[in-house]
Amino acid sequence: MRARLQKFLSRLKQENLDGFIISSPANISYLSEFNSCDAYLLVSKKETVYFTDSRYIEDVKPRLKGLASLKKINGSVFEIIADTCRDLSLKRVGFEERQMPYAEYKKIKQYLGSGAYLIPTYNLLEGLRQVKAAREIEKIRAALKITGLALQFIKTFIKPGIKELEIAAELERFIRYQGAIGAAFDIIVASGPNSVYPHHRPGPKKIKQGEAVLIDIGVDYFGYKSDLTRAFFLDKINSLTRRIYEIVLKAQAKAIAKIRPGKPIAEIDALARNYIAAKGYAKFFSHSLGHGIGLETHEAPSISPKSDGILVPGMVFTVEPAIYLPGRFGIRIEDMVLVTRKGCEVLSGFIHK
Amino acid sequence: MRARLQKFLSRLKQENLDGFIISSPANISYLSEFNSCDAYLLVSKKETVYFTDSRYIEDVKPRLKGLASLKKINGSVFEIIADTCRDLSLKRVGFEERQMPYAEYKKIKQYLGSGAYLIPTYNLLEGLRQVKAAREIEKIRAALKITGLALQFIKTFIKPGIKELEIAAELERFIRYQGAIGAAFDIIVASGPNSVYPHHRPGPKKIKQGEAVLIDIGVDYFGYKSDLTRAFFLDKINSLTRRIYEIVLKAQAKAIAKIRPGKPIAEIDALARNYIAAKGYAKFFSHSLGHGIGLETHEAPSISPKSDGILVPGMVFTVEPAIYLPGRFGIRIEDMVLVTRKGCEVLSGFIHK
Repeated sequence: MRARLQKFLSRLKQENLDGFIISSPANISYLSEFNSCDAYLLVSKKETVYFTDSRYIEDVKPRLKGLASLKKINGSVFEIIADTCRDLSLKRVGFEERQMPYAEYKKIKQYLGSGAYLIPTYNLLEGLRQVKAAREIEKIRAALKITGLALQFIKTFIKPGIKELEIAAELERFIRYQGAIGAAFDIIVASGPNSVYPHHRPGPKKIKQGEAVLIDIGVDYFGYKSDLTRAFFLDKINSLTRRIYEIVLKAQAKAIAKIRPGKPIAEIDALARNYIAAKGYAKFFSHSLGHGIGLETHEAPSISPKSDGILVPGMVFTVEPAIYLPGRFGIRIEDMVLVTRKGCEVLSGFIHK
Repeated sequence: MRARLQKFLSRLKQENLDGFIISSPANISYLSEFNSCDAYLLVSKKETVYFTDSRYIEDVKPRLKGLASLKKINGSVFEIIADTCRDLSLKRVGFEERQMPYAEYKKIKQYLGSGAYLIPTYNLLEGLRQVKAAREIEKIRAALKITGLALQFIKTFIKPGIKELEIAAELERFIRYQGAIGAAFDIIVASGPNSVYPHHRPGPKKIKQGEAVLIDIGVDYFGYKSDLTRAFFLDKINSLTRRIYEIVLKAQAKAIAKIRPGKPIAEIDALARNYIAAKGYAKFFSHSLGHGIGLETHEAPSISPKSDGILVPGMVFTVEPAIYLPGRFGIRIEDMVLVTRKGCEVLSGFIHK
């Protein structure tokens, strides 16, 4: 049996569960170690079963060795899952309460009848996924390598008169040629006043001389994601922009400097946030400092004032302080960090700021 | 008040609901008529409220006129939604059971306490969305226009030695330059034996002389999607490929010929399926004949043997019969059709087959 599955089975035992239904593609991909979609996985000590439909069955068959048997979905997947629970005599079956829609819960419960309990669980697999194995970190590094090349490439392309959407289109094309599956999320290219919107969609706006251009790009490399933001400046920047940029950069450095195992996560957020506040911009930094990243662009741990966890070696997350000045411009600087045994490594440190 | 919202409020009255929580981005986009994400909408006769966080608030503010008031999410969105239900004295509050995760249902229910009931509902807005308005059809036409240009453009690019992923990269770039927000889904480029997998991911495989190349591409034009599949052939094709292509093409024509208001949807599926079966390939056409399309690539109505609805003017859906021969190749031909008052219009009819 595969090691990740074995580890998860021990986790289920701790939770007093004899079965577990997974519907989240990222969690199935984690256990199966291939990119999975439109599937369900039923994990149990006796047998683990992968359910998918005719579109994927041929592709998946050879990949399940040591992990699961395969059942083709004919009719209602929820009925088949419930029947399989019954065949395996499972009594306490966990499910992912954050991902499973209410309707699916209701149907599986109904098909299970009184023979078994459906138990909501919170972030069981996400908890395991927080700490990355060496071969996961390798894929994240590969995603970042492509990200770095893409930004280097685009630097020569950004000129006054070029549209935001053209920059996004060229980046997207470039990363595919470099071996990425695609973008990890909609690439953000936000110029001038558009940079105030953290999730701006690149549009037909043309870049103007003197503007800041924020590029927030993520690469999907065999399921593992990168997420990085850089600000590009056309020509000389004015003194306010420079001042804001330097505050954000220093806020980021202050947070990164203290990342090490055992550190409360909320303290890392506070280091950047308090510095920005001390400079008078508290209310212009409106989101969390960062988020875990791996099979999903946003995953555990969240790096926010409300986080109650502590840092552990193997965690990978973003550090992305920002200041957004409504009606004017916004600056965000985002890097990716790996918690090491003694401190941290800025995985994206090689990408020029 | 906006017309769509008014219509939906009448629908709620029929269902004996005095409030409704929407979490599906497509459904919120439908009511708001702008591309919405990371938001919740609480609809009620007294007041409609849009909830979003600091990242989107500035962008959204000016767009809610005649639709909703705006509340910023600080802390738990579920608590804020429940408090708002209480302030508005809502007693029977519907939610989307297919989209709302169990955990969100549980939290809202808990915050609501005994003052109100949460009522699961199925496809209320999706039912309204099935029938497209003129301005929705215009956006779908625009998405298809870009799709057609993209396929015309790529024709000259496809040559032996070109990689699948390169074709996908060029298509993705091209559609953005033409004004698309991006691809509606991961573009499928499946050559030779890869064409057996309906959801193949384009990879480093090079196109070879004599192969069939299936391209399945969708364009997102201001929220509205296209979805189209064409087979390209390099050089002369062998007689089996030609035979299969002709069966699939004829199956599609047989289904399209009978599309008109009042027709049971399952019969449309049967027309294509039975023809493929009569030719001896029943078990090689493994998916539904088609699916509704609009704000989502897959939406109501489903065109499948199990569909129990009838066709209504304004419905837009795909017709995509296929034959997949394991280990050899697959052929799928996909067009988009609009049900008109007297019959149908093949919206993608202008795109060469």
